[in-house]
Amino acid sequence: MSTLSKYNLIENLIEQEEDGESFFLGDLSQIQQLYNQWMEILPQVEPFYAIESNPNPQLLDHLSRLNIGFCCASAGELALATDLETPREKILYSNTCKGVSHLKYARDNGIRMMTFDNESEIFKIKQIIPDAEMIIRLSVEEFGSTYSLKEKFGVTLKDAKKLLQVCKNLAMNVIGVSFNVGSNCRNPDVFYDALRNCKSIFVYARDELDFNFSVIDIGGGFSSIDRESPTSPLLFEATANTIKDALDEFFPEASIGGSLRVLAAPGHYFSETLFTLAVNIISKKVLSHDLQVISIDENILQVEKIMYYINEGFYSVLRCCKSGLIKCKPSAIYTDGKIHILHDSLELVYKSIVWGPSYSEIDRLPGEIELPNLQVGDWIVFENFGAYTMSGASNFSGFSTTKIHWMN
Amino acid sequence: MSTLSKYNLIENLIEQEEDGESFFLGDLSQIQQLYNQWMEILPQVEPFYAIESNPNPQLLDHLSRLNIGFCCASAGELALATDLETPREKILYSNTCKGVSHLKYARDNGIRMMTFDNESEIFKIKQIIPDAEMIIRLSVEEFGSTYSLKEKFGVTLKDAKKLLQVCKNLAMNVIGVSFNVGSNCRNPDVFYDALRNCKSIFVYARDELDFNFSVIDIGGGFSSIDRESPTSPLLFEATANTIKDALDEFFPEASIGGSLRVLAAPGHYFSETLFTLAVNIISKKVLSHDLQVISIDENILQVEKIMYYINEGFYSVLRCCKSGLIKCKPSAIYTDGKIHILHDSLELVYKSIVWGPSYSEIDRLPGEIELPNLQVGDWIVFENFGAYTMSGASNFSGFSTTKIHWMN
Repeated sequence: MSTLSKYNLIENLIEQEEDGESFFLGDLSQIQQLYNQWMEILPQVEPFYAIESNPNPQLLDHLSRLNIGFCCASAGELALATDLETPREKILYSNTCKGVSHLKYARDNGIRMMTFDNESEIFKIKQIIPDAEMIIRLSVEEFGSTYSLKEKFGVTLKDAKKLLQVCKNLAMNVIGVSFNVGSNCRNPDVFYDALRNCKSIFVYARDELDFNFSVIDIGGGFSSIDRESPTSPLLFEATANTIKDALDEFFPEASIGGSLRVLAAPGHYFSETLFTLAVNIISKKVLSHDLQVISIDENILQVEKIMYYINEGFYSVLRCCKSGLIKCKPSAIYTDGKIHILHDSLELVYKSIVWGPSYSEIDRLPGEIELPNLQVGDWIVFENFGAYTMSGASNFSGFSTTKIHWMN
Repeated sequence: MSTLSKYNLIENLIEQEEDGESFFLGDLSQIQQLYNQWMEILPQVEPFYAIESNPNPQLLDHLSRLNIGFCCASAGELALATDLETPREKILYSNTCKGVSHLKYARDNGIRMMTFDNESEIFKIKQIIPDAEMIIRLSVEEFGSTYSLKEKFGVTLKDAKKLLQVCKNLAMNVIGVSFNVGSNCRNPDVFYDALRNCKSIFVYARDELDFNFSVIDIGGGFSSIDRESPTSPLLFEATANTIKDALDEFFPEASIGGSLRVLAAPGHYFSETLFTLAVNIISKKVLSHDLQVISIDENILQVEKIMYYINEGFYSVLRCCKSGLIKCKPSAIYTDGKIHILHDSLELVYKSIVWGPSYSEIDRLPGEIELPNLQVGDWIVFENFGAYTMSGASNFSGFSTTKIHWMN
């Protein structure tokens, strides 16, 4: 659907929304297109959707019908995948630190493929799922990811060798290697370096320990848009090309029909662009004691301190903005009875403070947001808000879950 | 119940918990004691429990049976209070920025008492609940609160006068003044200054606008313990004494049986000490490449980087630790088959990194936590974990709600 048609639809939804309840507009038709793009550009890599980015049941159902695998962090997510009757070889339990009850769920539901990165995990898995198909997770030097994962997970090459030795001693079945470059990776070369490290572990495991690895999990970091310049679709293509080159160089057996499975854990890639968020301004405060011209600079005229209060915030679907994962840059506003798409530096805007609906001062969009002078009852629209938004929402302060309107 | 009996009970619960699931131990018997203390020390102030601090149904039910009022931030919280058949004069809708559907809920359920701090709110309330009993919220200069509320809510005395004029012009019924010094206030003088400001607004409203105010809401900021030195119960008493002195000086009509109602919104005060949290260590990583003696200082011996992974975190009940509201200082550990209470600087401890169970690097206890050398399967116990813990929990990454075991 074109952007214009989407905005027409949002305009209609806003006009029907007499109480100003915030909502998502979801467009599942994009999934097929995203899947097609993946299969065209990176056909030798099996996408395992990272459920944590958005566990919406309709979305999962659509992905399942495309025969996409699932990457899970907990028993709760494993249950979502098994409820969809996903073949077990399409489910990866990718959290390297697993609780006992979660491992038992995996055991009881035939899930075998799982990652690890420390010795305690090997002993725990040995006890509960002795026939697990273990994947060792390497740490990655990340440069260029918005959101790093290098401190919490993964081991160095040196420690990886020790852990593999422990696995060998315990007769555990190690089937491969994984890494994760972090979210929104903007430097494809990180994948090249990580795959070179995988190769060295493959060779060590084969030559020293007689393991015959059959899987590489290249994790996440994929976006279908370049968030720094959303009109450019080239970032995914550049990343895919680097991965293909590295696979050709280090793992020729990863070609289609070859002996090596390559898995990836896209989350943002599939979920981000599917949802647009519309929030209502429920209150406004202009601080009169700050009434002065502070600066006139590139169409930003600041005469007073404007504070808006909207009906979504940090405790609901906007927590992602705090982590720096997603920029809280509005795409459009609804004022004077219609949608206005916000173009860069076209309108007169004010640096405004935008607060969430709860009683908490943490509940605020970071920094100051450039907005025209809006009124209570006006709306703010955020595009590409499907990843890590609804998945981390709580009901703090008695605020309820954000509803979803679906495009046909 | 004595601390020792409580720890015996936790020990038993841990021993029965074969999968290492984290849990709260709740002790509702403390509520009566907290209520008695409030009524003894501050009898002229009606406590309205701030539901957002902990909306646990059993807790609310206990408070309701003591005839305590409720302070609500949303329709969801108003519904919790009305479901308990709370008399409407015991319900305060204290969020100054209210969504339309929330206001309609208040209207349809007979709730009239509500705060405001901006002009847009007056017009909105006028339209939906023209007979609302409005309370104007003043901003407070806060010194000494761990968690400030001064930027998001409240107006200056000057702006308050303008807003009251708007109310007068619209024939709105303003019944009083409110303020909130922020959480965990450690400087009682802030209450004195705030009550002096309330007095000036009372006089202005009476003399200039012919309003006859009958309510002061002195908000939150009360703790039943001094978190900086938990064994000292003197902070609440000192705060109460300052409030009593200020009421005597500025509002003699606030005495018991007098014409002025004084309300407060304790949250921490009632909920904080009721719950103890026990979390399990599900994984451990010692980074060998950091293996070196870094410092030997006051029983802290750092030879290597120890990282623990526990089964609660930022996305579940430990978000409060990020806000600085609650210190994530462990009270006890369970290791070698028994509970050990952690005394200050008695054991050999290591500065450790403690991660939550999700895939996210944000999911971490702030800073480094001093802990003995623990193993996977050991437990960490946090006391006074009832306020702003379970209320903000989400199910991010498929992790489920933390169970509660009750004493008696």
